[in-house]
Amino acid sequence: MRFFSDNAAPAHPKVLEAIAQANRLDTAYDGDDWSRRLDGAFSDLFGTEVRAFWVTTGTAANCLAVAALCPPYRAILCHKDAHIEVDEAGAPGFFTGGAKLVLLDGEGAKLTPGAIGDACGRIRNDVHQVQPAAISITNATEYGLAYRASEVAAIGDLARQRGLALHMDGARLANALVSTGDGLADMTWRAGVDALSFGFVKNGGLNAEALILFRTDLADEIAIRRKRAGHLLSKGRYLAAQLLATPEGALWLDNARAANAAAQALATAAADRLVYPVEANELFLNVSAEEAGRLRGAGFDFYDWGPGEIRLVTSWDQQGEALERLASAIAAL
Amino acid sequence: MRFFSDNAAPAHPKVLEAIAQANRLDTAYDGDDWSRRLDGAFSDLFGTEVRAFWVTTGTAANCLAVAALCPPYRAILCHKDAHIEVDEAGAPGFFTGGAKLVLLDGEGAKLTPGAIGDACGRIRNDVHQVQPAAISITNATEYGLAYRASEVAAIGDLARQRGLALHMDGARLANALVSTGDGLADMTWRAGVDALSFGFVKNGGLNAEALILFRTDLADEIAIRRKRAGHLLSKGRYLAAQLLATPEGALWLDNARAANAAAQALATAAADRLVYPVEANELFLNVSAEEAGRLRGAGFDFYDWGPGEIRLVTSWDQQGEALERLASAIAAL
Amino acid sequence: MRFFSDNAAPAHPKVLEAIAQANRLDTAYDGDDWSRRLDGAFSDLFGTEVRAFWVTTGTAANCLAVAALCPPYRAILCHKDAHIEVDEAGAPGFFTGGAKLVLLDGEGAKLTPGAIGDACGRIRNDVHQVQPAAISITNATEYGLAYRASEVAAIGDLARQRGLALHMDGARLANALVSTGDGLADMTWRAGVDALSFGFVKNGGLNAEALILFRTDLADEIAIRRKRAGHLLSKGRYLAAQLLATPEGALWLDNARAANAAAQALATAAADRLVYPVEANELFLNVSAEEAGRLRGAGFDFYDWGPGEIRLVTSWDQQGEALERLASAIAAL
Amino acid sequence: MRFFSDNAAPAHPKVLEAIAQANRLDTAYDGDDWSRRLDGAFSDLFGTEVRAFWVTTGTAANCLAVAALCPPYRAILCHKDAHIEVDEAGAPGFFTGGAKLVLLDGEGAKLTPGAIGDACGRIRNDVHQVQPAAISITNATEYGLAYRASEVAAIGDLARQRGLALHMDGARLANALVSTGDGLADMTWRAGVDALSFGFVKNGGLNAEALILFRTDLADEIAIRRKRAGHLLSKGRYLAAQLLATPEGALWLDNARAANAAAQALATAAADRLVYPVEANELFLNVSAEEAGRLRGAGFDFYDWGPGEIRLVTSWDQQGEALERLASAIAAL
Repeated sequence: MRFFSDNAAPAHPKVLEAIAQANRLDTAYDGDDWSRRLDGAFSDLFGTEVRAFWVTTGTAANCLAVAALCPPYRAILCHKDAHIEVDEAGAPGFFTGGAKLVLLDGEGAKLTPGAIGDACGRIRNDVHQVQPAAISITNATEYGLAYRASEVAAIGDLARQRGLALHMDGARLANALVSTGDGLADMTWRAGVDALSFGFVKNGGLNAEALILFRTDLADEIAIRRKRAGHLLSKGRYLAAQLLATPEGALWLDNARAANAAAQALATAAADRLVYPVEANELFLNVSAEEAGRLRGAGFDFYDWGPGEIRLVTSWDQQGEALERLASAIAAL
Repeated sequence: MRFFSDNAAPAHPKVLEAIAQANRLDTAYDGDDWSRRLDGAFSDLFGTEVRAFWVTTGTAANCLAVAALCPPYRAILCHKDAHIEVDEAGAPGFFTGGAKLVLLDGEGAKLTPGAIGDACGRIRNDVHQVQPAAISITNATEYGLAYRASEVAAIGDLARQRGLALHMDGARLANALVSTGDGLADMTWRAGVDALSFGFVKNGGLNAEALILFRTDLADEIAIRRKRAGHLLSKGRYLAAQLLATPEGALWLDNARAANAAAQALATAAADRLVYPVEANELFLNVSAEEAGRLRGAGFDFYDWGPGEIRLVTSWDQQGEALERLASAIAAL
Repeated sequence: MRFFSDNAAPAHPKVLEAIAQANRLDTAYDGDDWSRRLDGAFSDLFGTEVRAFWVTTGTAANCLAVAALCPPYRAILCHKDAHIEVDEAGAPGFFTGGAKLVLLDGEGAKLTPGAIGDACGRIRNDVHQVQPAAISITNATEYGLAYRASEVAAIGDLARQRGLALHMDGARLANALVSTGDGLADMTWRAGVDALSFGFVKNGGLNAEALILFRTDLADEIAIRRKRAGHLLSKGRYLAAQLLATPEGALWLDNARAANAAAQALATAAADRLVYPVEANELFLNVSAEEAGRLRGAGFDFYDWGPGEIRLVTSWDQQGEALERLASAIAAL
Repeated sequence: MRFFSDNAAPAHPKVLEAIAQANRLDTAYDGDDWSRRLDGAFSDLFGTEVRAFWVTTGTAANCLAVAALCPPYRAILCHKDAHIEVDEAGAPGFFTGGAKLVLLDGEGAKLTPGAIGDACGRIRNDVHQVQPAAISITNATEYGLAYRASEVAAIGDLARQRGLALHMDGARLANALVSTGDGLADMTWRAGVDALSFGFVKNGGLNAEALILFRTDLADEIAIRRKRAGHLLSKGRYLAAQLLATPEGALWLDNARAANAAAQALATAAADRLVYPVEANELFLNVSAEEAGRLRGAGFDFYDWGPGEIRLVTSWDQQGEALERLASAIAAL
């Protein structure tokens, strides 16, 4: 039983169904019936006018966004453990043409207005130092914490004051929404987010993510950058059809609810071992190497996360017996 | 009835079936059962050791390849009508970090050793001029001509003499193979091709293309560049499963055969209007604006291709009555 | 006697004098007394507010300018023989982050509104093709022709209509001004030029060129890009002091006048051999290989320029006997 | 009296003399008599075969070097206070095409094998994380400490073991050599340095620095990259002539000796205020804002360096009375 990552889970049956239904001749690229519905469907979902672009990876969504928000000669402020810094092979440098990531500290991979303000304060305002242009936050964070809408709004306020753009990596945004109970609009555009990587692959999708622009003036540039990065698929309808399962169904929230519930079940069993509160679908546990070996011996797979620590990630499809067995195994350590 | 492009056709039913079968939990990225079979399956197909990488677009395959074959400060020789020059939004400049495309002439978008040698001869060998590092050819060409294996080999010989790498954009390679009757090995690595964009989306695939490296020493770099460009999908198995329909079935050749046959049927009807011989699945016809209007009036869709010229592209699924009606309509013009 | 290029001539004595006078402690970078006078001095010279940046090469001036005028994903229209295309080692691709040069034809390396309009017309307005953002012209051209102010203005008009920026490579602008008798303002900003590479090295300078911005809103970006490209010298005063010899003296026009006069003296002797009219300080002559050998035997050095053609370039310091001897030698061929 | 930085000092009279002597027609770029002597002169100086390139800034030297040593998709390990990270406007990102700087801690901006090894150990060896390709150290460091040759050699050993290249930013290398008494060869190539930015502008030069390649196989690439970055000056002889004052005279060591002696004179007066030992020509002093005000009131200029700290930099020309007055003023605080 694999608890490596939600990014390896199967796609939800409805997603495969949507792909099958899109299997007829239509216009290429994003001129088809499904792709042309995206803007409207996501605008309805967010309650404001947005432009929605399908892409196939979170890295593409994140890096197209930051490239449009930050010129090559400026910087993006992010957490030192942010996915764009740690796990995207330097893609931000590639997409932006060499812009810099300025790395901030913060508990559980969360940024705060204080940390951001301090970082800005350390940058001399001259041509020798790289001036910031944007902030990127991840919600839920890489350590499974959820920003509340009010926390995002505080960062958004600071961003506006300092003339910085705000990007949100929402690979697990649905998990954060379910966890906090905050609304989608409050968590994003009302809080000052300019561009959002709307994750779906970790949440039941097959290979479609969405880049959502609240700054709709960037849409033309993003359309070009997407093509230029080789991310304009010929048969976009198969991506659009997947994504439409989200705004047009409750699939994404249902899936996130299931994954979060699975995480909570494990959290309960592992309460005294938790490194961070469990606010999404990731658990970081204090588990010795010997104990980790016992769990593996019992058939559970997961990543070690530094010495004496393991990471477990639950996904939309993990319910029932396997989960109970893992919870028991953890409790019995 | 749409004859715009083969890149809008539906995916072959076997491809959807393969995707459905891959819909179970496995290792993320390219560590799954399907992805790990790719190298072996394509090595068998080509009769030599290759490394095979799934990507979702021809642009990604082409540009990852040329970026690995040409440093930022050198040039790629290609036809002035090559897809990488005309229809990829400057992606080669993006992926290579600013390398130059040197544009050559040639009938029907075909390069010849003579044209390549002349172009090289015009470049002064000093630091002021950009020195070539690679050649990129498209087979079948953007005008539907097929290079024979011997023609590719002649270019390959020249490339080796001049220390240039050779890339082939094989978005419609299957069509060229079917048309010439030449073998896959003869057409590619035996002819000196270093890296091949192996097209599948235009040939029955859903959203999977393959980048095939005959220079296997480039595999590690390509793996990194693919990730860095946001092209390493989390659930790669859905791409790998599509592609395996090719080496493990005859699907790709069957599909190309069907598309080429459809093109021949139209070519026969339009014999006296052909701008180029029909050697794949594209037709360029001398058709006046008025005649084009009549065809459209009869329900046929296609692109105008300059004044007095139209382009028709057939695909794997176009057979039977619609085709016959178009053939008749053309003959009746 | 060397007629290879004006870029190898000695610096004018006044330039060395200016350097010597700047040899005292002052503020680093461009905070010194000389650098801070540049904007004012050049604004006076041009009769409008400009921002003036010293750099050490024409390539730096050209490429900083086009990088500020054209995003990575768009194109610069220029002549196929433009210096930025032919002799800058792909620097435009480097500075812009992969923008494209669209190459135009035109007699004597001159662009016309017609040629530019045609080129724009050939570019489909979609995300697959790279859309133009700027035009770059060279005055005097790479073949020694001078645009008149009215010709530049016609291009400037077209640029404005199409939303394109206009850059002028003025490596030999002084020669063009002297030749046409047109005014500096009419030839540049009044004609719609946004950024000008103001050449001085070919015209008596030691190692200082100026990048002049008529679009002063780009100044901050250029200042950063200059630093980021390693072109912000610590002791900028030695560059600024050189340049001030231009707006604050008549040195640049005097030097250009001398170089043009030398070229005219040779042109008279070579009248029936001229490939292009001589409108600056370059001559392209029909001279057979055997004749070229005779000239070289007599002690004259120059470049061959294709079969049966040679190039001669005069500079500010070439007067008197050597020139007369070359004129006689040409006449005697 | 200015103690801001050695990069604003006047050029040494012999440097101006060398420029004046180079003021005659010669071959352009680096084909002239002076430039062609550089390789030999520096090879003699270093006691091994090197390739020497003139450039005009340390940023250019540093970034051309790291671009040749690190591909776009890999990383350079350096101190978090390294000049390439802090004061070059993101130039490493520009020159490398987006490579990453991995920032290390270390007292006084010095790296140690331990810190480097730890940093490498934290990077997972997969395609998601950016793998290191090179190390860059600065000698003397940004805080005026000098690596001994043995310390560099220890880093060099580690670099070789891990397959990393080693670059040294030697903006103040002469100061470090004078301070440690170590030999030039021991400090550089014998210690495993692959490429060296050989500083001269801070040490009496006017606007010439040298990039020294011990890996001579990189010379062709560097020559192209220099041109492509706009750093190939037309009249290179004026740079080469400056630099030749170094290997062909003792100028550089004499100048460094003078600057270091000046720093020592101040260090003696400020012994109890020193933040770091003074091993080159920079002093960091604990000085309150009020005290700093008094020093400024007495006519001394310098930078504040964080709260309660100031930086003083001495240069080759600072001797005699002004220095004594500053020493007294510090002692009297």
